[in-house]
Amino acid sequence: MPNGKINAIVGQSGGPTAAINATLAGVIIGASKTEKIEKLYGAFNGVEGILNGRTCDLLELFKTKEDIDLLKQTPAAALGSCRFKLPKLDDPEGVKIYNKIFEYFEKNNIHAFFYIGGNDSMDTVVKLGEYSKKIGYPFYCMGVPKTIDNDLCGTDHTPGFGSSAKYIATTMAEILADCSVYTVKSVTIVEIMGRDAGWLTAASALSSYANGMAPDYIYLPEVDFDMEKFYCDIEKAFEKHPNVVIAVSEGARFANGTYVGEGTQSGAVDNFGHKYLSGTGKALELAVKDKFGCKVRSIELNLPQRCAAHIQSKTDIEESVKIGAAAVSYVFQNSGCMMGFVRSNSERYRVSCKPMLVSEIANKVKEVPAEYINDEGNNVTEACIKYMLPLIQGERKYLINKGLPRYISIKRPE
Amino acid sequence: MPNGKINAIVGQSGGPTAAINATLAGVIIGASKTEKIEKLYGAFNGVEGILNGRTCDLLELFKTKEDIDLLKQTPAAALGSCRFKLPKLDDPEGVKIYNKIFEYFEKNNIHAFFYIGGNDSMDTVVKLGEYSKKIGYPFYCMGVPKTIDNDLCGTDHTPGFGSSAKYIATTMAEILADCSVYTVKSVTIVEIMGRDAGWLTAASALSSYANGMAPDYIYLPEVDFDMEKFYCDIEKAFEKHPNVVIAVSEGARFANGTYVGEGTQSGAVDNFGHKYLSGTGKALELAVKDKFGCKVRSIELNLPQRCAAHIQSKTDIEESVKIGAAAVSYVFQNSGCMMGFVRSNSERYRVSCKPMLVSEIANKVKEVPAEYINDEGNNVTEACIKYMLPLIQGERKYLINKGLPRYISIKRPE
Repeated sequence: MPNGKINAIVGQSGGPTAAINATLAGVIIGASKTEKIEKLYGAFNGVEGILNGRTCDLLELFKTKEDIDLLKQTPAAALGSCRFKLPKLDDPEGVKIYNKIFEYFEKNNIHAFFYIGGNDSMDTVVKLGEYSKKIGYPFYCMGVPKTIDNDLCGTDHTPGFGSSAKYIATTMAEILADCSVYTVKSVTIVEIMGRDAGWLTAASALSSYANGMAPDYIYLPEVDFDMEKFYCDIEKAFEKHPNVVIAVSEGARFANGTYVGEGTQSGAVDNFGHKYLSGTGKALELAVKDKFGCKVRSIELNLPQRCAAHIQSKTDIEESVKIGAAAVSYVFQNSGCMMGFVRSNSERYRVSCKPMLVSEIANKVKEVPAEYINDEGNNVTEACIKYMLPLIQGERKYLINKGLPRYISIKRPE
Repeated sequence: MPNGKINAIVGQSGGPTAAINATLAGVIIGASKTEKIEKLYGAFNGVEGILNGRTCDLLELFKTKEDIDLLKQTPAAALGSCRFKLPKLDDPEGVKIYNKIFEYFEKNNIHAFFYIGGNDSMDTVVKLGEYSKKIGYPFYCMGVPKTIDNDLCGTDHTPGFGSSAKYIATTMAEILADCSVYTVKSVTIVEIMGRDAGWLTAASALSSYANGMAPDYIYLPEVDFDMEKFYCDIEKAFEKHPNVVIAVSEGARFANGTYVGEGTQSGAVDNFGHKYLSGTGKALELAVKDKFGCKVRSIELNLPQRCAAHIQSKTDIEESVKIGAAAVSYVFQNSGCMMGFVRSNSERYRVSCKPMLVSEIANKVKEVPAEYINDEGNNVTEACIKYMLPLIQGERKYLINKGLPRYISIKRPE
């Protein structure tokens, strides 16, 4: 550790969430409280901002509680994001990139680095840590996870999941209410994000807390999708009520590994020669229409699933701030780690933030476990609901301007 | 008017909104306060419920403030809806239907009828009024409008529009934030409801109150859509920033009257022989991808636009309650009318509820007027924003259960 105070830098990477800025707020709060950090740089568009020197002074920009509160309620990534993957350490061309990064660090007395992002971001943390050792540069780095998908190992759950789950459960409850008003037979298929793990699709089951109504079936990528079974499921549901509502993951796959949505992507073109790219929901919509001839609608929840900040989970946002601040506390003792959540075994929900080895978290997918899926493979269990429910608790109070939640933006250098 | 107290009946009809139950709450409040009404029947699934005798006793069911509050925050139609159109008065077969309805009315001492719905519902109000005169049955009826589309004449705006507009503006602000995080060129196309009028699409402009960002362009059905102009617009936007965001109405049409979305509906089939039914957003997505080769995404806001009760406009809900209660106040003096809103000319936004002639309101479409659309035909004006802004004001406090807004359901007879 160099003598005296050092400077630190933070970046955001990967897809937007409704909570990634809350974690940034946590890092700012943590840095403002520690004696060790003088200045906290914000890198615009992640590593790209370090490479092209586009940064800002976050402790200078966020001096008031109001600005910190605005940051917490701003969706997406206030510093911008990137999908930049660092080259291998032994790549001769890559060395130029690493040199450029560490030149910037040295010039600005930067010896601590925080990266808020998904799997690729953790790869960046590890590589920068290793390179610093190679060149003997005093350097402390920490990854902070964010993904709405909740598919990282090691951590009990991921920051951002709770808010997306709350949005999905609330929207599903509204769709269920909407679909129940008519007496004519109908099937409504709601396609939910999560290519490899079904956590977000599972969250649609929480809709039952609005009014006892939940989707008739929930199909996750963890279970092989079977078309005949699917038709049987719908027939059974029609025996109970005329309006069938289904939640399906965008990642639903047949036993042979093909995605359910792939059928509609294979070669069909319109009269301009455009190839159709449809999704899982649309594919099932067409299949159900063909089989049952009833009214069918598919709904893709799309981007709002990951950026619907107007219905953040208070629990998620508070935890996201906490894990950002904890990253600052742990960075000097646990450099090269990634922060994660540990849930206590007590009956009352409680989590703490702990540094974890990146190897335990990144590059592996945490699927929805078997005990969270019912025997028929078309719904979730009570255990799954018990796991997810605490994560969507609490409503946030927003700073409002003319009927809309206010967002903050960080001014870019010219 | 018969001697003593009479009974009344209320039904809901047409597509769900986030405010139609608030209007039902208003009718219940109004009926509970007037001396003239003894009992308020609720007809399940509109006129269908009268025909098959499926009704409930609303004053008995909604005795507490909490239940009324729950009804206000419940989306869709708590009594269920229908798309039933009454036959013509001189239709010999139709007479059976009218007789059945009025037999039910007479048997239950029902002499007042409230119908909350769209254009077709107003047709029902008029026909029942005329038939009652024909048979000399003392009868008072009143229509109460609801449509998220805001396309009814006579009334300043429609109950339900404000909540949908608030949802669309908020969601658009979130999508704009989401799309701005990357530095690579992209076009995002958001398709918004409104087949014949562009009010809901226009509401996306209100997103600017979150953080100064609004869609680059807003295309309404009121302006002929021109593909070459559209491409030029995108090129111009790319000169300013890499992430272009567009709002387009599902009803956007070319000068020859064909819908923009029709191109992708004309004959293309997938490998199962399914005909593709795409929308305006998808059609433009394919066209932009073809023209610019950049990242393109289309988002269809779909059902949540009309049922997103978790972000109701407080103004809309209060007005929706008020117009329901006003319907009860006016029904005996202004039978056969439809309630509407009149906006005062004062600088401060104020509306009052007035009975209006059905002929002034129904069966005509109120389009977005020319002065609300910019000269280029690709955005809205300040005057349009000034008209819409008061309608989305105010945030509602919700009764919550385990992180979700609670809904109420009205038990159906066996």
